[in-house]
Amino acid sequence: METYPTKENIQSAHERIKNFIHKTPLLTSTQLNEITNSQLFFKCENLQKVGAFKMRGASNAILSLTDNDLVNGVATHSSGNHAAALAKAAKMKNVPAYIVMPENAPEIKKNAVKSYGGEIIFCKPTLEAREQTLNEVVKKTHAVFIHPYNNDKIIEGQATCAKEIFEEESDFDFIIAPVGGGGLLSGTSLATYYFSNNTKVIGAEPAGADDAFRSIRDKKIYPSVNPQTIADGLRTSLTKKTFGIISKFADEIITVREDSILKAMKLIWERMKIIVEPSGAVPFAVILENKEKFKNKKIALILSGGNCDLNNLPWNSNKQ
Amino acid sequence: METYPTKENIQSAHERIKNFIHKTPLLTSTQLNEITNSQLFFKCENLQKVGAFKMRGASNAILSLTDNDLVNGVATHSSGNHAAALAKAAKMKNVPAYIVMPENAPEIKKNAVKSYGGEIIFCKPTLEAREQTLNEVVKKTHAVFIHPYNNDKIIEGQATCAKEIFEEESDFDFIIAPVGGGGLLSGTSLATYYFSNNTKVIGAEPAGADDAFRSIRDKKIYPSVNPQTIADGLRTSLTKKTFGIISKFADEIITVREDSILKAMKLIWERMKIIVEPSGAVPFAVILENKEKFKNKKIALILSGGNCDLNNLPWNSNKQ
Repeated sequence: METYPTKENIQSAHERIKNFIHKTPLLTSTQLNEITNSQLFFKCENLQKVGAFKMRGASNAILSLTDNDLVNGVATHSSGNHAAALAKAAKMKNVPAYIVMPENAPEIKKNAVKSYGGEIIFCKPTLEAREQTLNEVVKKTHAVFIHPYNNDKIIEGQATCAKEIFEEESDFDFIIAPVGGGGLLSGTSLATYYFSNNTKVIGAEPAGADDAFRSIRDKKIYPSVNPQTIADGLRTSLTKKTFGIISKFADEIITVREDSILKAMKLIWERMKIIVEPSGAVPFAVILENKEKFKNKKIALILSGGNCDLNNLPWNSNKQ
Repeated sequence: METYPTKENIQSAHERIKNFIHKTPLLTSTQLNEITNSQLFFKCENLQKVGAFKMRGASNAILSLTDNDLVNGVATHSSGNHAAALAKAAKMKNVPAYIVMPENAPEIKKNAVKSYGGEIIFCKPTLEAREQTLNEVVKKTHAVFIHPYNNDKIIEGQATCAKEIFEEESDFDFIIAPVGGGGLLSGTSLATYYFSNNTKVIGAEPAGADDAFRSIRDKKIYPSVNPQTIADGLRTSLTKKTFGIISKFADEIITVREDSILKAMKLIWERMKIIVEPSGAVPFAVILENKEKFKNKKIALILSGGNCDLNNLPWNSNKQ
């Protein structure tokens, strides 16, 4: 039988990490409420350390290990925010972080990992190459592999985000989190089950990377094959662990079009004056595409990250 | 003898407006602390309603008037954030706002005023035309003229920003606010005098619009003539009222180069994931240019606004 983090596990995780993360603001916008006819609360994980909720899980994973466990450092494969978060969390404990990244990863993500002191090992941009390179790194360094989401400590950490929301506001009709590999949505689903009443949990997914939607619908895991979306954080596949938790504790997965993601992203930048990456705008895109469903509802949305290349914004790309 | 807002005036202003404004977050950034070797607290007025601290003063001015005073609405001349704030505050009271704007004002500012229901009257882009057009509008409509900063109620409102900072954190060595016409710096200086101990107040000004620096140095008001700066909110001149308060209650004005303003702005976007306009980045530019002075100090910086044209960012302009 599969087990999953308990209420106490999540409470302990929050205690463990709270001096190492930001308690991010829960912002409202009269303008966006007016546009949508709903009452929206944006949990600004784009303002989290390293610019993404990933800092929660990475901190919890590393702080849950003993100094002895950590003596050879940690390792992961990631082209995204988990890589930067793990490097930063490892630096807090003064241990090395070995990050396997595809050689075509964006410069901004490579620079972020380097700036936190992570050691990058490049590989070909295939899942096979990533896993093989990671295995070689672990064999050579004896570092502890910390998977970006198929890990209970990671999921507990991500769950603290929704826990903070429910500690600040109550009576939400819905909470919406983006879904890629499912770590954040798993944590959000569990935290909602433990710390809220009558709040429905929705996973937000790009239609061009709808493997989680199809997996939950058909009750079997489909891998994400050749995903086509600007939301680079949401191209990954569910694992047995995240699929299990989401199947049991989330209510629904809703997919959105690419043009809605861009529209949502630009509205958040323009009206809220905060920088959210495409993946982080996907929950708001769900609202924009389904205004009737959410009319007059009170909704928490997790703005999951804010790491964008400011020299190459999607709405400028046509002009250049 | 000149009078200025009292402690009680500012406390009353805060009570009056607090349900009409955001209590904006006071954010920290480990990365920016490391870059500057100081302890920085950023008061995010870029996340204020209408994207600028101007909402505080405009709300206080309008809410201080009786319904009878307001029966014919309000009027101002402004090409910037005060225009949008006054339009929004007038809408709260369901009275018209007549905004005299130079015909060459940025589209984004015109659209902001329109979106809050303000009625725009265009004029030639000279101070003379602005004042003459405003006089005609007031004569015709009998609206109440609310000056952007030469007004005690405006200054009391702007003072609530620093008051909030000191209610959340204490023991600041410095507080830094940008200075254009001096409304925010006046309010900040008074609030620091009333609500803080041993905190020095610094006005931050672009070197290309250094009229306040010269005015305070020479103890006489120099008008701002042909200012050359990207910080469009800081091109205005002090008035007798703001000059008087700043002379008495601020400690220093420090000017910064244009390249420092751009560097400060981009660092805030990249590292803090929030959108700050050039004028709002000027206090951080002061830190970047004077690292020794601020080393190991605890400093509050007011990020005064976040209204930028996202289709025309300064760091993209060379490429296009």
